Amino acid sequence: MKNPFAELVGFTLRVGRRGSGTSVAALGVRSGLLNPNGVVHGGVLFTLADTAMGAALYTTLAPGENCATIEIKIHFLRPVTKGKIRCLTRLVHRGSRIAVLESHLSAGRVQVAQALGTFTIIMPRPEKTTGSGGVKRRRLSQ
Amino acid sequence: MKNPFAELVGFTLRVGRRGSGTSVAALGVRSGLLNPNGVVHGGVLFTLADTAMGAALYTTLAPGENCATIEIKIHFLRPVTKGKIRCLTRLVHRGSRIAVLESHLSAGRVQVAQALGTFTIIMPRPEKTTGSGGVKRRRLSQ
Amino acid sequence: MKNPFAELVGFTLRVGRRGSGTSVAALGVRSGLLNPNGVVHGGVLFTLADTAMGAALYTTLAPGENCATIEIKIHFLRPVTKGKIRCLTRLVHRGSRIAVLESHLSAGRVQVAQALGTFTIIMPRPEKTTGSGGVKRRRLSQ
Amino acid sequence: MKNPFAELVGFTLRVGRRGSGTSVAALGVRSGLLNPNGVVHGGVLFTLADTAMGAALYTTLAPGENCATIEIKIHFLRPVTKGKIRCLTRLVHRGSRIAVLESHLSAGRVQVAQALGTFTIIMPRPEKTTGSGGVKRRRLSQ
Repeated sequence: MKNPFAELVGFTLRVGRRGSGTSVAALGVRSGLLNPNGVVHGGVLFTLADTAMGAALYTTLAPGENCATIEIKIHFLRPVTKGKIRCLTRLVHRGSRIAVLESHLSAGRVQVAQALGTFTIIMPRPEKTTGSGGVKRRRLSQ
Repeated sequence: MKNPFAELVGFTLRVGRRGSGTSVAALGVRSGLLNPNGVVHGGVLFTLADTAMGAALYTTLAPGENCATIEIKIHFLRPVTKGKIRCLTRLVHRGSRIAVLESHLSAGRVQVAQALGTFTIIMPRPEKTTGSGGVKRRRLSQ
Repeated sequence: MKNPFAELVGFTLRVGRRGSGTSVAALGVRSGLLNPNGVVHGGVLFTLADTAMGAALYTTLAPGENCATIEIKIHFLRPVTKGKIRCLTRLVHRGSRIAVLESHLSAGRVQVAQALGTFTIIMPRPEKTTGSGGVKRRRLSQ
Repeated sequence: MKNPFAELVGFTLRVGRRGSGTSVAALGVRSGLLNPNGVVHGGVLFTLADTAMGAALYTTLAPGENCATIEIKIHFLRPVTKGKIRCLTRLVHRGSRIAVLESHLSAGRVQVAQALGTFTIIMPRPEKTTGSGGVKRRRLSQ
Protein backbone atom coordinates (compact mmCIF):
# COMPACT_ATOMS: atom_id res chain seq x y z
CA MET A 1 0.00 0.00 0.00
CA LYS A 2 1.58 3.29 -1.06
CA ASN A 3 1.83 5.99 1.61
CA PRO A 4 3.39 9.05 -0.06
CA PHE A 5 3.60 11.29 3.02
CA ALA A 6 5.03 8.53 5.21
CA GLU A 7 7.67 8.01 2.51
CA LEU A 8 8.45 11.72 2.51
CA VAL A 9 9.04 11.59 6.28
CA GLY A 10 10.95 8.36 5.80
CA PHE A 11 10.63 5.53 8.29
CA THR A 12 10.20 1.77 8.45
CA LEU A 13 7.08 0.11 9.80
CA ARG A 14 6.54 -3.50 10.80
CA VAL A 15 3.19 -4.78 12.01
CA GLY A 16 2.73 -7.54 14.56
CA ARG A 17 1.09 -10.85 13.68
CA ARG A 18 -2.52 -10.89 12.48
CA GLY A 19 -4.84 -9.85 15.32
CA SER A 20 -2.06 -8.56 17.56
CA GLY A 21 -2.96 -4.88 17.35
CA THR A 22 0.73 -3.92 17.48
CA SER A 23 3.35 -2.29 15.27
CA VAL A 24 6.92 -1.02 15.48
CA ALA A 25 8.13 1.99 13.52
CA ALA A 26 11.71 3.29 13.32
CA LEU A 27 13.09 6.53 11.95
CA GLY A 28 16.61 7.90 11.62
CA VAL A 29 16.85 11.60 12.46
CA ARG A 30 18.14 13.75 9.59
CA SER A 31 18.46 17.51 9.24
CA GLY A 32 15.36 17.78 7.05
CA LEU A 33 13.15 16.69 9.95
CA LEU A 34 14.17 19.44 12.38
CA ASN A 35 12.30 22.53 13.56
CA PRO A 36 13.78 26.03 14.06
CA ASN A 37 15.12 25.02 17.49
CA GLY A 38 17.19 22.22 15.95
CA VAL A 39 15.03 19.42 17.38
CA VAL A 40 12.87 16.90 15.53
CA HIS A 41 9.59 18.63 14.56
CA GLY A 42 6.51 17.50 16.48
CA GLY A 43 4.86 16.78 13.14
CA VAL A 44 7.42 14.04 12.47
CA LEU A 45 6.68 12.26 15.74
CA PHE A 46 2.93 12.66 15.18
CA THR A 47 3.19 11.22 11.65
CA LEU A 48 5.06 8.23 13.07
CA ALA A 49 2.42 7.62 15.76
CA ASP A 50 -0.61 8.16 13.49
CA THR A 51 0.72 5.85 10.77
CA ALA A 52 1.80 3.22 13.30
CA MET A 53 -1.59 3.26 15.04
CA GLY A 54 -3.38 2.74 11.72
CA ALA A 55 -1.06 -0.16 10.88
CA ALA A 56 -1.50 -1.75 14.32
CA LEU A 57 -5.27 -1.52 14.10
CA TYR A 58 -5.17 -2.91 10.55
CA THR A 59 -3.99 -6.26 11.92
CA THR A 60 -7.41 -6.65 13.56
CA LEU A 61 -9.64 -5.65 10.63
CA ALA A 62 -11.87 -8.12 8.79
CA PRO A 63 -11.70 -8.30 5.00
CA GLY A 64 -13.25 -5.20 3.46
CA GLU A 65 -13.02 -3.13 6.66
CA ASN A 66 -10.97 0.04 6.73
CA CYS A 67 -10.13 2.57 9.45
CA ALA A 68 -9.58 6.30 9.88
CA THR A 69 -8.18 8.48 12.66
CA ILE A 70 -10.78 10.33 14.72
CA GLU A 71 -8.37 12.15 17.06
CA ILE A 72 -4.92 11.77 18.58
CA LYS A 73 -3.27 13.59 21.48
CA ILE A 74 0.51 13.53 21.55
CA HIS A 75 2.77 14.63 24.41
CA PHE A 76 6.33 15.75 23.72
CA LEU A 77 8.44 14.75 26.71
CA ARG A 78 12.00 15.49 25.64
CA PRO A 79 13.63 17.07 22.58
CA VAL A 80 15.41 14.78 20.10
CA THR A 81 18.24 16.12 17.97
CA LYS A 82 19.85 13.00 16.47
CA GLY A 83 19.97 9.20 16.44
CA LYS A 84 17.10 6.78 15.99
CA ILE A 85 13.50 7.07 17.12
CA ARG A 86 11.43 3.96 17.81
CA CYS A 87 7.65 3.97 18.09
CA LEU A 88 5.96 1.01 19.81
CA THR A 89 2.18 0.91 19.36
CA ARG A 90 -0.50 -1.27 20.92
CA LEU A 91 -4.26 -1.52 20.87
CA VAL A 92 -5.79 -0.36 24.17
CA HIS A 93 -9.40 -1.18 23.27
CA ARG A 94 -11.18 -2.60 20.23
CA GLY A 95 -14.92 -2.11 19.93
CA SER A 96 -16.89 -2.98 16.82
CA ARG A 97 -16.74 0.58 15.51
CA ILE A 98 -14.27 2.43 17.74
CA ALA A 99 -10.69 1.56 18.69
CA VAL A 100 -8.21 3.24 21.06
CA LEU A 101 -4.45 2.88 20.57
CA GLU A 102 -1.35 4.17 22.30
CA SER A 103 2.20 4.79 21.08
CA HIS A 104 5.39 5.16 23.07
CA LEU A 105 8.23 6.89 21.22
CA SER A 106 11.80 6.61 22.44
CA ALA A 107 15.32 7.57 21.40
CA GLY A 108 17.80 5.09 22.80
CA ARG A 109 16.44 4.23 26.23
CA VAL A 110 14.75 7.56 26.80
CA GLN A 111 11.04 8.03 26.19
CA VAL A 112 10.56 11.19 24.10
CA ALA A 113 6.82 11.21 23.34
CA GLN A 114 3.55 9.42 24.08
CA ALA A 115 0.33 9.41 22.07
CA LEU A 116 -3.21 8.18 22.73
CA GLY A 117 -5.72 8.15 19.89
CA THR A 118 -9.14 7.05 18.69
CA PHE A 119 -9.90 5.42 15.34
CA THR A 120 -13.15 4.55 13.66
CA ILE A 121 -13.62 1.20 11.94
CA ILE A 122 -15.46 1.49 8.66
CA MET A 123 -17.49 -1.50 7.58
CA PRO A 124 -18.04 -2.38 3.95
CA ARG A 125 -21.55 -1.28 3.01
CA PRO A 126 -23.91 -4.21 2.59
CA GLU A 127 -25.80 -2.68 -0.32
CA LYS A 128 -22.63 -2.37 -2.32
CA THR A 129 -22.13 -6.13 -2.50
CA THR A 130 -25.06 -6.36 -4.86
CA GLY A 131 -23.62 -3.70 -7.13
CA SER A 132 -21.71 -4.62 -10.23
CA GLY A 133 -19.53 -1.57 -10.57
CA GLY A 134 -16.84 -3.26 -8.55
CA VAL A 135 -15.07 -0.08 -7.57
CA LYS A 136 -14.52 -0.14 -3.85
CA ARG A 137 -15.62 3.16 -2.38
CA ARG A 138 -14.13 3.90 0.98
CA ARG A 139 -16.35 5.91 3.28
CA LEU A 140 -13.83 7.89 5.24
CA SER A 141 -16.14 10.68 6.24
CA GLN A 142 -17.44 9.78 9.67
CA MET B 1 14.25 31.30 11.09
CA LYS B 2 14.80 28.10 9.13
CA ASN B 3 12.25 25.34 9.63
CA PRO B 4 13.43 22.37 7.53
CA PHE B 5 10.48 20.05 8.22
CA ALA B 6 7.88 22.76 7.63
CA GLU B 7 9.63 23.43 4.30
CA LEU B 8 9.46 19.73 3.44
CA VAL B 9 5.70 19.75 4.07
CA GLY B 10 5.49 23.05 2.20
CA PHE B 11 3.14 25.78 3.38
CA THR B 12 3.05 29.53 3.94
CA LEU B 13 2.69 31.07 7.39
CA ARG B 14 1.81 34.64 8.33
CA VAL B 15 1.69 35.80 11.93
CA GLY B 16 -0.66 38.46 13.25
CA ARG B 17 0.61 41.74 14.64
CA ARG B 18 2.89 41.76 17.69
CA GLY B 19 0.94 40.59 20.75
CA SER B 20 -2.03 39.27 18.77
CA GLY B 21 -1.44 35.58 19.42
CA THR B 22 -2.71 34.71 15.95
CA SER B 23 -1.39 33.21 12.73
CA VAL B 24 -2.68 32.01 9.35
CA ALA B 25 -1.11 29.09 7.49
CA ALA B 26 -2.02 27.89 3.99
CA LEU B 27 -1.08 24.71 2.14
CA GLY B 28 -1.82 23.45 -1.35
CA VAL B 29 -2.61 19.73 -1.43
CA ARG B 30 -0.24 17.70 -3.63
CA SER B 31 0.09 13.97 -4.16
CA GLY B 32 3.14 13.69 -1.90
CA LEU B 33 1.05 14.65 1.14
CA LEU B 34 -1.52 11.84 0.84
CA ASN B 35 -1.98 8.68 2.89
CA PRO B 36 -2.84 5.21 1.53
CA ASN B 37 -6.54 6.13 1.34
CA GLY B 38 -5.78 9.03 -1.01
CA VAL B 39 -6.55 11.73 1.57
CA VAL B 40 -4.17 14.25 3.14
CA HIS B 41 -2.17 12.48 5.90
CA GLY B 42 -3.05 13.48 9.44
CA GLY B 43 0.62 14.26 10.00
CA VAL B 44 0.38 17.07 7.44
CA LEU B 45 -2.53 18.74 9.23
CA PHE B 46 -0.82 18.26 12.59
CA THR B 47 2.41 19.82 11.29
CA LEU B 48 0.42 22.81 10.06
CA ALA B 49 -1.32 23.26 13.43
CA ASP B 50 1.78 22.73 15.59
CA THR B 51 3.90 25.16 13.55
CA ALA B 52 1.09 27.72 13.39
CA MET B 53 0.50 27.55 17.15
CA GLY B 54 4.20 28.14 17.85
CA ALA B 55 4.20 31.12 15.47
CA ALA B 56 1.04 32.59 17.00
CA LEU B 57 2.44 32.28 20.51
CA TYR B 58 5.73 33.78 19.35
CA THR B 59 3.98 37.11 18.76
CA THR B 60 3.49 37.37 22.54
CA LEU B 61 6.99 36.42 23.70
CA ALA B 62 9.37 38.88 25.33
CA PRO B 63 12.93 39.20 23.98
CA GLY B 64 14.94 36.11 24.87
CA GLU B 65 11.89 33.97 25.57
CA ASN B 66 11.25 30.84 23.56
CA CYS B 67 8.46 28.24 23.54
CA ALA B 68 7.96 24.51 23.03
CA THR B 69 4.94 22.27 22.50
CA ILE B 70 3.84 20.28 25.55
CA GLU B 71 0.92 18.45 23.92
CA ILE B 72 -1.62 18.86 21.14
CA LYS B 73 -4.84 16.98 20.43
CA ILE B 74 -6.10 17.13 16.86
CA HIS B 75 -9.50 15.99 15.57
CA PHE B 76 -9.92 14.98 11.93
CA LEU B 77 -13.44 15.94 10.90
CA ARG B 78 -13.52 15.33 7.15
CA PRO B 79 -11.09 13.88 4.60
CA VAL B 80 -9.33 16.29 2.23
CA THR B 81 -8.17 15.09 -1.17
CA LYS B 82 -7.33 18.28 -3.08
CA GLY B 83 -7.42 22.07 -3.09
CA LYS B 84 -6.15 24.45 -0.41
CA ILE B 85 -6.10 24.04 3.35
CA ARG B 86 -6.18 27.07 5.63
CA CYS B 87 -5.26 26.97 9.31
CA LEU B 88 -6.43 29.81 11.55
CA THR B 89 -4.82 29.84 14.99
CA ARG B 90 -5.52 31.91 18.09
CA LEU B 91 -4.32 32.07 21.66
CA VAL B 92 -6.94 30.78 24.11
CA HIS B 93 -4.99 31.53 27.29
CA ARG B 94 -1.58 33.02 28.06
CA GLY B 95 -0.11 32.44 31.50
CA SER B 96 3.43 33.39 32.45
CA ARG B 97 4.73 29.88 31.77
CA ILE B 98 1.88 28.01 30.05
CA ALA B 99 -0.17 28.92 26.98
CA VAL B 100 -3.14 27.23 25.32
CA LEU B 101 -3.86 27.68 21.61
CA GLU B 102 -6.45 26.42 19.15
CA SER B 103 -6.38 25.91 15.39
CA HIS B 104 -9.26 25.55 12.96
CA LEU B 105 -8.35 23.96 9.63
CA SER B 106 -10.63 24.28 6.64
CA ALA B 107 -10.72 23.44 2.94
CA GLY B 108 -12.88 25.94 1.10
CA ARG B 109 -15.75 26.65 3.49
CA VAL B 110 -15.67 23.27 5.17
CA GLN B 111 -13.91 22.72 8.49
CA VAL B 112 -11.70 19.63 8.20
CA ALA B 113 -9.81 19.53 11.51
CA GLN B 114 -9.54 21.23 14.90
CA ALA B 115 -6.63 21.22 17.33
CA LEU B 116 -6.19 22.34 20.94
CA GLY B 117 -2.69 22.41 22.43
CA THR B 118 -0.51 23.46 25.35
CA PHE B 119 2.85 25.20 25.07
CA THR B 120 5.47 26.04 27.67
CA ILE B 121 7.16 29.44 27.67
CA ILE B 122 10.86 29.23 28.36
CA MET B 123 12.45 32.21 30.06
CA PRO B 124 16.03 33.22 29.44
CA ARG B 125 18.15 32.00 32.36
CA PRO B 126 19.22 34.83 34.66
CA GLU B 127 22.71 33.42 35.16
CA LYS B 128 23.39 33.56 31.46
CA THR B 129 23.26 37.34 31.39
CA THR B 130 26.60 37.41 33.17
CA GLY B 131 28.16 34.98 30.71
CA SER B 132 30.36 36.17 27.90
CA GLY B 133 30.18 33.15 25.62
CA GLY B 134 27.29 34.66 23.78
CA VAL B 135 25.93 31.37 22.53
CA LYS B 136 22.22 31.28 23.26
CA ARG B 137 21.36 27.95 24.83
CA ARG B 138 17.74 27.05 24.50
CA ARG B 139 16.32 24.98 27.30
CA LEU B 140 13.71 22.93 25.51
CA SER B 141 13.56 20.09 27.99
CA GLN B 142 10.71 20.86 30.34
CA MET C 1 -34.45 12.23 32.45
CA LYS C 2 -32.87 11.58 35.85
CA ASN C 3 -29.14 12.25 36.13
CA PRO C 4 -28.16 11.35 39.70
CA PHE C 5 -24.50 12.38 39.51
CA ALA C 6 -25.27 15.68 37.79
CA GLU C 7 -27.76 16.33 40.63
CA LEU C 8 -25.07 15.52 43.22
CA VAL C 9 -22.76 18.10 41.62
CA GLY C 10 -25.71 20.46 41.32
CA PHE C 11 -26.12 22.66 38.26
CA THR C 12 -28.78 23.85 35.83
CA LEU C 13 -28.76 22.89 32.17
CA ARG C 14 -30.71 24.41 29.29
CA VAL C 15 -30.48 23.07 25.76
CA GLY C 16 -30.81 25.17 22.61
CA ARG C 17 -33.67 24.70 20.17
CA ARG C 18 -34.06 21.35 18.36
CA GLY C 19 -31.14 20.81 15.98
CA SER C 20 -29.03 23.64 17.38
CA GLY C 21 -26.33 21.48 18.95
CA THR C 22 -25.97 23.94 21.82
CA SER C 23 -26.49 24.05 25.58
CA VAL C 24 -25.83 26.34 28.53
CA ALA C 25 -25.02 25.02 31.99
CA ALA C 26 -24.61 27.09 35.17
CA LEU C 27 -23.24 26.14 38.56
CA GLY C 28 -22.89 28.07 41.83
CA VAL C 29 -19.61 27.34 43.60
CA ARG C 30 -20.04 25.92 47.11
CA SER C 31 -17.51 24.52 49.58
CA GLY C 32 -18.38 20.91 48.80
CA LEU C 33 -17.04 21.28 45.26
CA LEU C 34 -13.51 22.37 46.22
CA ASN C 35 -10.21 20.48 46.08
CA PRO C 36 -7.45 20.54 48.74
CA ASN C 37 -6.10 23.83 47.33
CA GLY C 38 -9.44 25.54 47.92
CA VAL C 39 -10.33 25.79 44.23
CA VAL C 40 -13.17 24.09 42.36
CA HIS C 41 -12.16 20.47 41.64
CA GLY C 42 -11.37 19.66 38.02
CA GLY C 43 -13.90 16.85 38.22
CA VAL C 44 -16.68 19.41 38.74
CA LEU C 45 -15.76 21.34 35.60
CA PHE C 46 -15.40 18.09 33.64
CA THR C 47 -18.83 16.88 34.81
CA LEU C 48 -20.34 20.16 33.66
CA ALA C 49 -18.71 19.92 30.21
CA ASP C 50 -19.45 16.21 29.68
CA THR C 51 -23.11 16.56 30.65
CA ALA C 52 -23.52 19.75 28.64
CA MET C 53 -21.96 18.18 25.53
CA GLY C 54 -24.30 15.20 25.74
CA ALA C 55 -27.30 17.54 26.10
CA ALA C 56 -26.17 19.72 23.18
CA LEU C 57 -25.71 16.70 20.93
CA TYR C 58 -29.09 15.34 22.04
CA THR C 59 -30.82 18.23 20.26
CA THR C 60 -29.63 16.74 16.95
CA LEU C 61 -30.56 13.08 17.55
CA ALA C 62 -33.33 11.32 15.65
CA PRO C 63 -35.99 9.42 17.59
CA GLY C 64 -34.49 6.25 19.06
CA GLU C 65 -30.90 7.43 18.74
CA ASN C 66 -28.74 7.80 21.80
CA CYS C 67 -25.17 8.99 22.36
CA ALA C 68 -22.17 8.25 24.57
CA THR C 69 -18.88 10.00 25.30
CA ILE C 70 -15.83 8.51 23.58
CA GLU C 71 -13.23 10.92 24.97
CA ILE C 72 -12.91 14.48 26.26
CA LYS C 73 -9.84 16.62 26.86
CA ILE C 74 -10.28 19.50 29.28
CA HIS C 75 -7.85 22.36 29.92
CA PHE C 76 -7.89 24.20 33.24
CA LEU C 77 -6.91 27.80 32.54
CA ARG C 78 -7.49 29.60 35.83
CA PRO C 79 -8.50 28.51 39.34
CA VAL C 80 -12.04 29.30 40.51
CA THR C 81 -12.78 29.74 44.19
CA LYS C 82 -16.26 31.26 44.29
CA GLY C 83 -19.13 32.75 42.30
CA LYS C 84 -20.91 31.28 39.30
CA ILE C 85 -19.52 29.12 36.51
CA ARG C 86 -21.15 29.14 33.08
CA CYS C 87 -20.51 26.47 30.45
CA LEU C 88 -21.37 27.27 26.82
CA THR C 89 -21.32 24.25 24.51
CA ARG C 90 -21.60 23.94 20.76
CA LEU C 91 -21.37 21.21 18.14
CA VAL C 92 -18.16 21.46 16.11
CA HIS C 93 -18.93 18.59 13.74
CA ARG C 94 -21.78 16.12 13.32
CA GLY C 95 -21.17 12.99 11.28
CA SER C 96 -23.64 10.13 11.08
CA ARG C 97 -21.89 8.17 13.82
CA ILE C 98 -19.33 10.55 15.35
CA ALA C 99 -19.76 14.07 16.74
CA VAL C 100 -17.25 16.59 18.09
CA LEU C 101 -18.26 19.24 20.63
CA GLU C 102 -16.54 22.04 22.49
CA SER C 103 -17.29 23.76 25.79
CA HIS C 104 -16.07 27.11 27.08
CA LEU C 105 -16.35 27.55 30.86
CA SER C 106 -16.15 30.98 32.42
CA ALA C 107 -16.53 32.68 35.81
CA GLY C 108 -17.74 36.21 35.35
CA ARG C 109 -15.97 37.43 32.22
CA VAL C 110 -12.92 35.25 32.67
CA GLN C 111 -12.55 31.96 30.80
CA VAL C 112 -11.52 29.26 33.29
CA ALA C 113 -11.56 26.06 31.24
CA GLN C 114 -12.03 24.70 27.71
CA ALA C 115 -12.97 21.20 26.61
CA LEU C 116 -13.04 19.39 23.27
CA GLY C 117 -14.65 15.96 23.05
CA THR C 118 -15.86 13.16 20.80
CA PHE C 119 -19.19 11.37 21.10
CA THR C 120 -20.57 8.33 19.34
CA ILE C 121 -24.13 8.29 18.06
CA ILE C 122 -25.87 5.01 18.67
CA MET C 123 -28.59 4.01 16.24
CA PRO C 124 -31.56 1.92 17.26
CA ARG C 125 -30.95 -1.68 16.17
CA PRO C 126 -33.09 -2.67 13.17
CA GLU C 127 -33.80 -6.18 14.51
CA LYS C 128 -35.33 -4.76 17.64
CA THR C 129 -38.19 -3.19 15.74
CA THR C 130 -39.62 -6.66 15.20
CA GLY C 131 -39.45 -7.47 18.89
CA SER C 132 -42.50 -7.19 21.08
CA GLY C 133 -40.81 -6.94 24.46
CA GLY C 134 -40.76 -3.20 24.19
CA VAL C 135 -37.87 -2.74 26.57
CA LYS C 136 -35.47 -0.31 24.97
CA ARG C 137 -31.98 -1.71 25.22
CA ARG C 138 -29.30 0.89 24.89
CA ARG C 139 -26.08 -0.29 23.33
CA LEU C 140 -23.58 1.93 25.06
CA SER C 141 -20.58 -0.27 24.52
CA GLN C 142 -18.86 1.00 21.42
CA MET D 1 -5.54 17.25 53.49
CA LYS D 2 -9.26 17.80 53.08
CA ASN D 3 -10.69 17.22 49.59
CA PRO D 4 -14.41 18.03 49.82
CA PHE D 5 -15.36 17.09 46.24
CA ALA D 6 -13.41 13.83 46.33
CA GLU D 7 -15.31 13.03 49.55
CA LEU D 8 -18.62 13.81 47.85
CA VAL D 9 -17.76 11.35 45.07
CA GLY D 10 -16.50 8.92 47.70
CA PHE D 11 -13.42 6.82 47.05
CA THR D 12 -10.25 5.66 48.77
CA LEU D 13 -6.79 6.73 47.65
CA ARG D 14 -3.42 5.27 48.55
CA VAL D 15 -0.17 6.74 47.28
CA GLY D 16 2.97 4.73 46.55
CA ARG D 17 6.17 5.21 48.53
CA ARG D 18 7.92 8.59 48.44
CA GLY D 19 9.27 9.29 44.96
CA SER D 20 7.33 6.46 43.28
CA GLY D 21 4.95 8.64 41.28
CA THR D 22 2.18 6.10 41.75
CA SER D 23 -1.22 5.83 43.42
CA VAL D 24 -4.17 3.46 43.64
CA ALA D 25 -7.77 4.68 43.99
CA ALA D 26 -10.85 2.54 44.51
CA LEU D 27 -14.53 3.39 44.31
CA GLY D 28 -17.69 1.38 44.91
CA VAL D 29 -20.42 2.12 42.38
CA ARG D 30 -23.65 3.43 43.93
CA SER D 31 -26.81 4.79 42.36
CA GLY D 32 -25.89 8.42 43.06
CA LEU D 33 -22.94 8.18 40.66
CA LEU D 34 -24.93 7.15 37.57
CA ASN D 35 -25.87 9.13 34.47
CA PRO D 36 -29.25 9.05 32.68
CA ASN D 37 -28.25 5.85 30.84
CA GLY D 38 -27.74 4.03 34.15
CA VAL D 39 -23.95 3.87 33.82
CA VAL D 40 -21.32 5.56 35.99
CA HIS D 41 -21.04 9.23 34.92
CA GLY D 42 -17.87 10.18 33.07
CA GLY D 43 -17.33 12.91 35.64
CA VAL D 44 -16.90 10.27 38.35
CA LEU D 45 -14.15 8.47 36.44
CA PHE D 46 -12.50 11.79 35.59
CA THR D 47 -12.56 12.89 39.24
CA LEU D 48 -10.92 9.60 40.21
CA ALA D 49 -8.16 10.00 37.60
CA ASP D 50 -7.50 13.70 38.25
CA THR D 51 -7.28 13.22 42.02
CA ALA D 52 -5.15 10.10 41.68
CA MET D 53 -2.74 11.82 39.28
CA GLY D 54 -2.28 14.72 41.68
CA ALA D 55 -1.62 12.30 44.55
CA ALA D 56 0.85 10.25 42.49
CA LEU D 57 2.77 13.36 41.46
CA TYR D 58 2.73 14.60 45.06
CA THR D 59 5.03 11.73 46.06
CA THR D 60 7.77 13.35 43.94
CA LEU D 61 7.41 16.96 45.14
CA ALA D 62 10.04 18.72 47.24
CA PRO D 63 8.97 20.51 50.45
CA GLY D 64 7.03 23.66 49.59
CA GLU D 65 6.26 22.57 46.02
CA ASN D 66 2.67 22.14 44.90
CA CYS D 67 1.05 21.03 41.64
CA ALA D 68 -2.00 21.76 39.51
CA THR D 69 -3.68 20.07 36.56
CA ILE D 70 -3.03 21.69 33.17
CA GLU D 71 -5.11 19.29 31.06
CA ILE D 72 -6.35 15.70 31.04
CA LYS D 73 -7.83 13.62 28.24
CA ILE D 74 -9.92 10.64 29.32
CA HIS D 75 -11.22 7.83 27.11
CA PHE D 76 -14.32 5.88 28.13
CA LEU D 77 -13.87 2.33 26.85
CA ARG D 78 -16.78 0.43 28.37
CA PRO D 79 -19.82 1.36 30.47
CA VAL D 80 -19.80 0.44 34.18
CA THR D 81 -23.07 -0.14 36.00
CA LYS D 82 -22.04 -1.74 39.30
CA GLY D 83 -19.20 -3.23 41.32
CA LYS D 84 -15.83 -1.71 42.14
CA ILE D 85 -13.66 0.58 40.03
CA ARG D 86 -9.91 0.63 40.50
CA CYS D 87 -7.67 3.41 39.17
CA LEU D 88 -3.93 2.70 38.83
CA THR D 89 -1.82 5.79 38.17
CA ARG D 90 1.82 6.22 37.26
CA LEU D 91 4.17 9.04 36.33
CA VAL D 92 5.11 8.94 32.62
CA HIS D 93 7.53 11.87 32.72
CA ARG D 94 8.76 14.29 35.39
CA GLY D 95 10.43 17.50 34.27
CA SER D 96 11.32 20.30 36.66
CA ARG D 97 8.12 22.21 35.90
CA ILE D 98 5.94 19.84 33.87
CA ALA D 99 4.83 16.26 34.60
CA VAL D 100 2.82 13.76 32.54
CA LEU D 101 0.79 11.00 34.22
CA GLU D 102 -1.46 8.18 33.07
CA SER D 103 -4.31 6.34 34.75
CA HIS D 104 -5.84 2.98 33.89
CA LEU D 105 -9.33 2.41 35.31
CA SER D 106 -10.80 -1.06 35.50
CA ALA D 107 -13.85 -2.88 36.85
CA GLY D 108 -12.95 -6.42 37.74
CA ARG D 109 -10.51 -7.50 35.06
CA VAL D 110 -11.94 -5.25 32.36
CA GLN D 111 -10.36 -1.90 31.54
CA VAL D 112 -13.11 0.74 31.43
CA ALA D 113 -11.22 4.01 30.93
CA GLN D 114 -7.76 5.46 30.32
CA ALA D 115 -6.51 8.98 31.00
CA LEU D 116 -3.35 10.89 30.07
CA GLY D 117 -2.71 14.29 31.63
CA THR D 118 -0.27 17.13 32.18
CA PHE D 119 0.44 18.84 35.50
CA THR D 120 2.47 21.90 36.36
CA ILE D 121 4.81 21.90 39.35
CA ILE D 122 4.68 25.12 41.30
CA MET D 123 7.83 26.12 43.15
CA PRO D 124 7.75 28.09 46.36
CA ARG D 125 8.54 31.73 45.56
CA PRO D 126 12.04 32.73 46.66
CA GLU D 127 10.94 36.11 48.02
CA LYS D 128 8.56 34.42 50.39
CA THR D 129 11.38 32.75 52.30
CA THR D 130 12.35 36.14 53.69
CA GLY D 131 8.82 36.86 54.82
CA SER D 132 7.74 36.24 58.38
CA GLY D 133 4.00 36.06 57.90
CA GLY D 134 4.17 32.34 57.50
CA VAL D 135 1.01 32.04 55.46
CA LYS D 136 1.77 29.77 52.54
CA ARG D 137 0.38 31.33 49.39
CA ARG D 138 -0.15 28.84 46.64
CA ARG D 139 0.25 30.18 43.14
CA LEU D 140 -2.17 28.02 41.23
CA SER D 141 -2.66 30.37 38.31
CA GLN D 142 -0.29 29.19 35.60
